[in-house]
Amino acid sequence: MPARVLVPDLDAATLVASLPEDETHHLVRVLRLGAGDTVRVFDGRGREWDAVVEAVAGRHARVRLGAPAVPAPEPRVRVTLAMALVKGDKMDDVVRDAVMLGVTTIRPVVTAHGQVPRAGVRAPGLTSRWQRVAVASTKQSGRAVVPHVAEVAPVTSLWDEGSGLRLLLAEPALADEAVVTPASLAGEPPPEVTLAVGPEGGWHPGEVAAAKAAGWRLLRLGGRTLRADAAPIVALSALLAVWGEL
Amino acid sequence: MPARVLVPDLDAATLVASLPEDETHHLVRVLRLGAGDTVRVFDGRGREWDAVVEAVAGRHARVRLGAPAVPAPEPRVRVTLAMALVKGDKMDDVVRDAVMLGVTTIRPVVTAHGQVPRAGVRAPGLTSRWQRVAVASTKQSGRAVVPHVAEVAPVTSLWDEGSGLRLLLAEPALADEAVVTPASLAGEPPPEVTLAVGPEGGWHPGEVAAAKAAGWRLLRLGGRTLRADAAPIVALSALLAVWGEL
Repeated sequence: MPARVLVPDLDAATLVASLPEDETHHLVRVLRLGAGDTVRVFDGRGREWDAVVEAVAGRHARVRLGAPAVPAPEPRVRVTLAMALVKGDKMDDVVRDAVMLGVTTIRPVVTAHGQVPRAGVRAPGLTSRWQRVAVASTKQSGRAVVPHVAEVAPVTSLWDEGSGLRLLLAEPALADEAVVTPASLAGEPPPEVTLAVGPEGGWHPGEVAAAKAAGWRLLRLGGRTLRADAAPIVALSALLAVWGEL
Repeated sequence: MPARVLVPDLDAATLVASLPEDETHHLVRVLRLGAGDTVRVFDGRGREWDAVVEAVAGRHARVRLGAPAVPAPEPRVRVTLAMALVKGDKMDDVVRDAVMLGVTTIRPVVTAHGQVPRAGVRAPGLTSRWQRVAVASTKQSGRAVVPHVAEVAPVTSLWDEGSGLRLLLAEPALADEAVVTPASLAGEPPPEVTLAVGPEGGWHPGEVAAAKAAGWRLLRLGGRTLRADAAPIVALSALLAVWGEL
């Protein structure tokens, strides 16, 4: 697989694209590629082409598009992961893994028992950091769609939003008759799902109550306790598997 | 949930157990518990009790067993993960996550394209390190069964071993008519499964051929490329989900 290069504002009609500065830097300085080398160019919205580097002029490389290429398939279900903030780099890993599995949107949320962004860390900075992680993971996974990372928001903004299936990942201790399991959801995937995963300290009872009142369903993943930062990848893998998307 | 303490050679008939040195150290120095405190004691083979610390004498704490407790359930399927060696700490993460999900055995294997243990690193040292990771993850996940970490072995030792369902995780590029997906395996779990996951560099074609010749089936997980160290947790989650064990 040749190196994959993202050109978000690509005009395929012209057959020539100018790479953004950061992509040019990566191509030339990290991958050590130059004029004549073969790459794959994708637009972040699902289209991809074989391409050849024509020239590197200053901070922008120019590539010539060739035949359309087939990127990794997108799941038929649009998945939003609403993730409670977890410590430090673990949030990067969550973004990376969720993108690799095929989510379309990641919504970092502040919960009662979870982390809050440190004073002085401005939310836009965090979001653009995670967006860069999402781009890198999109490239690695072979996808041509770059998922959207939303701004950090309070979890309360979540309950009344989202259409389709809305699932709150419940801890094993949360016995509840309304709990669903991945196997109980097996079959054709819904068009859209939002999965909310809580922090290391678990959900606040008020959060669970608010979600249920707003029509969310509790999802249970076996009886073994999952680490908070591993829970999203386990839950996403389980759901995509029962829907035939893995 | 009180702290969980492993006593492998526990004699439940006596109702009193002497903790091993390392468990005593963890209890006293890390968790700062002492006489009168409540703990959970498990034997690593599936049994667990409520217990109270009676005394700490030197390097061994003594606990008195109370009522039997119910640990996290074990999957109905016995899962062996045969994992190609991946770099450094990533192998620790693989062991930790596989244990959290419910495997019974982990077999680290040396493959053509993967890592080999550094000269000077003796395999028994690696195994006991991973076994400690397995114990820690057993405690965190609430399981009372400590999975076994086998010695590092060449992957060729794998093909003719193992009963039950034997699955080799295939990269998306490995198109093959014999490929199965998690959804295609849905239903009652088999009693036993061995899942082999390859290294970052992928399987050598000879390894795939040898596995197929020995009756292994190729497992495919969607068309997106998974990082080698994330592949085990995705594959295990997918399989346990379709078998109703998540």
